[in-house]
Amino acid sequence: MPEQPSTLARTERTTLRRKRERGSYDRAAACAVLDEALVAHVGFELDGTAHVLPMVHARVGDVLYLHGAAGNRMLRRLADGVPVCVTVTLVDGIVLARAAAHHSLNYRCVVLYGRAERVTDPAEVDRASAALLDHMAPGRAGDARPPDEADRRRTMFVRIPIGEGSLKVRTGPPLDEEQDMGLDVWAGVVPLSLAAGPPQTDPALGRGVAVPAYAAAYPRRGAGRA
Amino acid sequence: MPEQPSTLARTERTTLRRKRERGSYDRAAACAVLDEALVAHVGFELDGTAHVLPMVHARVGDVLYLHGAAGNRMLRRLADGVPVCVTVTLVDGIVLARAAAHHSLNYRCVVLYGRAERVTDPAEVDRASAALLDHMAPGRAGDARPPDEADRRRTMFVRIPIGEGSLKVRTGPPLDEEQDMGLDVWAGVVPLSLAAGPPQTDPALGRGVAVPAYAAAYPRRGAGRA
Repeated sequence: MPEQPSTLARTERTTLRRKRERGSYDRAAACAVLDEALVAHVGFELDGTAHVLPMVHARVGDVLYLHGAAGNRMLRRLADGVPVCVTVTLVDGIVLARAAAHHSLNYRCVVLYGRAERVTDPAEVDRASAALLDHMAPGRAGDARPPDEADRRRTMFVRIPIGEGSLKVRTGPPLDEEQDMGLDVWAGVVPLSLAAGPPQTDPALGRGVAVPAYAAAYPRRGAGRA
Repeated sequence: MPEQPSTLARTERTTLRRKRERGSYDRAAACAVLDEALVAHVGFELDGTAHVLPMVHARVGDVLYLHGAAGNRMLRRLADGVPVCVTVTLVDGIVLARAAAHHSLNYRCVVLYGRAERVTDPAEVDRASAALLDHMAPGRAGDARPPDEADRRRTMFVRIPIGEGSLKVRTGPPLDEEQDMGLDVWAGVVPLSLAAGPPQTDPALGRGVAVPAYAAAYPRRGAGRA
């Protein structure tokens, strides 16, 4: 496999204009965000309007996979190779400033641009499916029944290269104006993370199947994890 | 104020095609999702490509407000009145099925279509700013310094009517094929919610300012809250 450049491709549309100090093109950092987030917001144009849909994604090396029902109109549009924008955002905290105008979120956000291609090789579908399961819950791919012929007919996977994109990150305390620093208003960050509750076993499951560790002790996602 | 219809406007592009039983046009349910989520993914076309950006939003009645730096190229594009798609997603859980192909997320997702308009009335800017703060942390608007003239110059608010849109919701256990129900694979849901850690006071804050209740006991967001 050819070695990937260590940065994402900087182009006109990925050049960060606002608050450049928060941005980067670091591939490893961007991939870490893609791996931690559970949902991607996928945008593309259709009938003169942008459409934005949430999709579960998974990364394998320098490729991002999306999937859905093979009959899905939106997914088929993607597979036609239209330009696509994939945005993946982790909310890490609420930033409460002294001034209303400086309230913000701490976050990490990756924006990728590219074109999708339908995955047709059954072996690649299987790899993408396994990546998807292990992305949702590390270790899951080893337990679930892999896709069969019928599953592959019903489900479509598309592949988007992780090439052109950028990463934007906000961390740390609020940034108020000098004039407001003496105000008697609490300021700081409430850290946030996606936390799991106790697993809910399918009522239709036979007795005697133990809850796997990845479900019983599902790891927190987000920088706000305590 | 004219009374709002109790449903979102169903149009060609908001008519749900896949898994229709998961969809609705219920305005109150859609507004509840908008109010609970901290981030909206905003999509619009520019230079032949869709762009999707995360933005903090707030709802006041039947209007959704977005805001950002007044010089922000993307926000100015929105304020020009181009068609916009605003998607707000809450991830409520991971659905682990017996078969790889039936893995899914439990989620609630609102998709709105419309056009944005810049808010120019200072009183409306103030109302939108207060709604934004109370959306981030209920009660916060009463504590922070409200926008002044300089803030209003630096920050742009846009207004999008909550009219045309739809809501899609998945809840409950996995839905496997009949043939897989006897498999010796654990199946169920890992519920997820956005959970706060202990508040981090700004190191620059003077002593003697107490942590407010909305930061000390920040409520969980998401159906997965225990």
